[in-house]
Amino acid sequence: MESTDLFRQIEFIKEVDKLKYIVRKTKLFNSDRNENDAEHSWHLALMAIVLAGHANVPVDLLKVVKMLLIHDIVEIDAGDTFIYDTQKSHDNTAEERAAANRIFGLLPEAQAAELMAVWEEFEAQQTNEAKFARAMDRLEPLLQNTSNNGGTWAEFGVTYEKVYTKKQVIQQGSATIWQYAEQLINESVDRGILER
Amino acid sequence: MESTDLFRQIEFIKEVDKLKYIVRKTKLFNSDRNENDAEHSWHLALMAIVLAGHANVPVDLLKVVKMLLIHDIVEIDAGDTFIYDTQKSHDNTAEERAAANRIFGLLPEAQAAELMAVWEEFEAQQTNEAKFARAMDRLEPLLQNTSNNGGTWAEFGVTYEKVYTKKQVIQQGSATIWQYAEQLINESVDRGILER
Ligand SMILES: [Ca+2]
Repeated sequence: MESTDLFRQIEFIKEVDKLKYIVRKTKLFNSDRNENDAEHSWHLALMAIVLAGHANVPVDLLKVVKMLLIHDIVEIDAGDTFIYDTQKSHDNTAEERAAANRIFGLLPEAQAAELMAVWEEFEAQQTNEAKFARAMDRLEPLLQNTSNNGGTWAEFGVTYEKVYTKKQVIQQGSATIWQYAEQLINESVDRGILER
Repeated sequence: MESTDLFRQIEFIKEVDKLKYIVRKTKLFNSDRNENDAEHSWHLALMAIVLAGHANVPVDLLKVVKMLLIHDIVEIDAGDTFIYDTQKSHDNTAEERAAANRIFGLLPEAQAAELMAVWEEFEAQQTNEAKFARAMDRLEPLLQNTSNNGGTWAEFGVTYEKVYTKKQVIQQGSATIWQYAEQLINESVDRGILER
């Protein structure tokens, strides 16, 4: 690589620091402190490494990790979207696409295209890697909410059916993890921290 | 993998959430807010992905990313160690080793051994992957301090020689990145944000 590449890469590295300021609705485990997107991305990437053996089919783990490290970068411009928000759909808005173009576009051309493609692959949810990555993204807040007396479910009045619908895509990435997640959701109703 | 494995993995995933509370001395770019270890680990992993092409020799990028995602996990028990601290040496203390045994030990046995080995490899600094990973760990605070009017150098009275000594190991991972880093250090003296 040339040193002009390095200058562009450094600009990208500085820009993505802003992900540390994007605050999510969910809170840390057993905590009142909201999680930010950078911490969230770190956690998902590490979860993928630890849980990869449960994927329905063997996945390219480096690809999955790349996806998870960058999947929320567009929120630097577009802001966090709450999964249970009824006003704004999360998926692949024009705003998010413009953000991806701007932020990945800071990189040398070939690399910008590569990371853009990884982001698109995650968004499109067609490949095994994208499905397993999404399973991580759906599992973490489930673990957080069940450790926080219902967390965002309680705070925003989200009911069982909505939770179940959003979470059941986990099975597309891992049947084993979905079996565990489904049990957690049902137990949450029994515990009175999720309204049926 | 068996479901008993999954239960142990979930315990590990919950435990490492605590990395989000470990506060570093360095601050975010152009900011007064201290960085935490989880954000830091996310940033380094993404830097490795973006900068891998500058490694002195081709590296196993998944290995490097694993190293960076877990390299500070021992600080959950042992606390953050400031690189310019004269009292406490960072490298591989008994306290850090005990922390690694406890935290990685939450995982199923084979996986605990694998991640322990990855952590040991980073600490030992013998392999190309470990050297490149360390280059990332030394580069990020350099970029932060130069964007923060000297940052921790100014705050703790760290001088050029100490900075130069700690940073020059970057060249073991990447001569190109070191060339850039060395220039940044020298410019910092010229800018009056690093005392010679
Ligand atoms: Ca998100």
